[in-house]
Amino acid sequence: MPRYALKIEYDGRPFSGWQRQKDQPSVQGAVEAALGKLEADVPSIAAAGRTDAGVHALGQVATCDLQKDWTPFRLTEALNYHLKPDRVAIVACALVDDGFHARFSAIERQYLFRLISRRAPLVHDRGNAWRVVQALDADAMQAGADRLIGRHDFTTFRSTMCQADSPVKTLDELRVETLPYPGGTEYRFHVRARSFLHNQVRSFVGTLERVGAGSWSPDDVTAALEARDRAACGPVCPPDGLYLARVGYPVDPFSNT
Amino acid sequence: MPRYALKIEYDGRPFSGWQRQKDQPSVQGAVEAALGKLEADVPSIAAAGRTDAGVHALGQVATCDLQKDWTPFRLTEALNYHLKPDRVAIVACALVDDGFHARFSAIERQYLFRLISRRAPLVHDRGNAWRVVQALDADAMQAGADRLIGRHDFTTFRSTMCQADSPVKTLDELRVETLPYPGGTEYRFHVRARSFLHNQVRSFVGTLERVGAGSWSPDDVTAALEARDRAACGPVCPPDGLYLARVGYPVDPFSNT
Repeated sequence: MPRYALKIEYDGRPFSGWQRQKDQPSVQGAVEAALGKLEADVPSIAAAGRTDAGVHALGQVATCDLQKDWTPFRLTEALNYHLKPDRVAIVACALVDDGFHARFSAIERQYLFRLISRRAPLVHDRGNAWRVVQALDADAMQAGADRLIGRHDFTTFRSTMCQADSPVKTLDELRVETLPYPGGTEYRFHVRARSFLHNQVRSFVGTLERVGAGSWSPDDVTAALEARDRAACGPVCPPDGLYLARVGYPVDPFSNT
Repeated sequence: MPRYALKIEYDGRPFSGWQRQKDQPSVQGAVEAALGKLEADVPSIAAAGRTDAGVHALGQVATCDLQKDWTPFRLTEALNYHLKPDRVAIVACALVDDGFHARFSAIERQYLFRLISRRAPLVHDRGNAWRVVQALDADAMQAGADRLIGRHDFTTFRSTMCQADSPVKTLDELRVETLPYPGGTEYRFHVRARSFLHNQVRSFVGTLERVGAGSWSPDDVTAALEARDRAACGPVCPPDGLYLARVGYPVDPFSNT
């Protein structure tokens, strides 16, 4: 049974999240329905990250086992045909070894969060970024972000629904990029770790936005981290600006695609 | 009666175009309805460019006459409040002299066209760009574009519905910018002239895409231009990727905003 890795782009807005749920539209359900048009009895697919409702992806990775030998090109074209009109697209596909698993083989996840500061409501990026009206201090946000880098107990920045065994994770990167945006400024948070806790990125960005607005100091971020208490977290920001950008593997399955 | 210039951003998809029409949603109608919440009997507003159905704007400019003295900040905030949930936003506002007219004072229009080449359907930019599946040659498109620069009779690149007095216009810029795009390549056409004929930009881009795909040569563009015949034009491309980007005036009314 050949195994395929799929790199998937999606707009999270219409979905209750990645994971298949009864009576709710999900990205997993959409991809599995498209696979079901190609073969009967396709087994459930596994993804690198189970994104929440409203969270987008540029490079989600999932593995699926099929009966027929498909060329990656034909499999991609057939899936994209059947995924219409959903805002889900297969952007790369590769044949992988049986030992490859989208989730368990992953050694790194990268998220992107788009935060836009401007007075006017968003038009072209509505739903694709979180907009705030106040001006933000990028240097202060980066100073706050620097307090979170490294190996820590991230209980403060973890949803109470989180099912991870341990709140201890190593955050490898949390970089704030500043870009011009019509009528305002865009801040892109580039966040990278082996794995994340539930709501961790949105808890980071919601807290760092408070630092950018001047109501928190970088020292307050350290104090919140050290409190190891969910109640010490800043406001959790909305999912609109969050993208699962890239999943890293020891060998990139898509390097030849 | 104070006169205000408004810089307006909009997503053209839900609208039949800029111009107010009976029983059809229009951008002009949306802005006039918002103005109507602020004062009674607001006169009809004038815009720099009457964009077609599905065409977007980053910097449309319109002028309106009001009875009360509004600060530009308060007028902007009030209009954006009443424009919700439409995808229309006032991104700048300025008090201008009675002699200023959004359309007749304009000395330059800039359009942006986003063309994306990739196999997978668009997800995050669906409706905001025109996607083609074939690879394109940017140098060939630029060579074709160069044939159109300058003062010409653009009958070939003008809709038969065009109401302009003369088909002779001067095209000041038609520059093709190449950008990386996930799973493909984005080509941005930057087009600048004092004024444009109806469907001129979409006629240019549809024709130049044929040059990029290799089915037309730059010499074919010259031949089409010299034919001065609408039938000689390449296919007119869809409106999805077209944005009225900027309107130029002798003195920028928004320079202090």
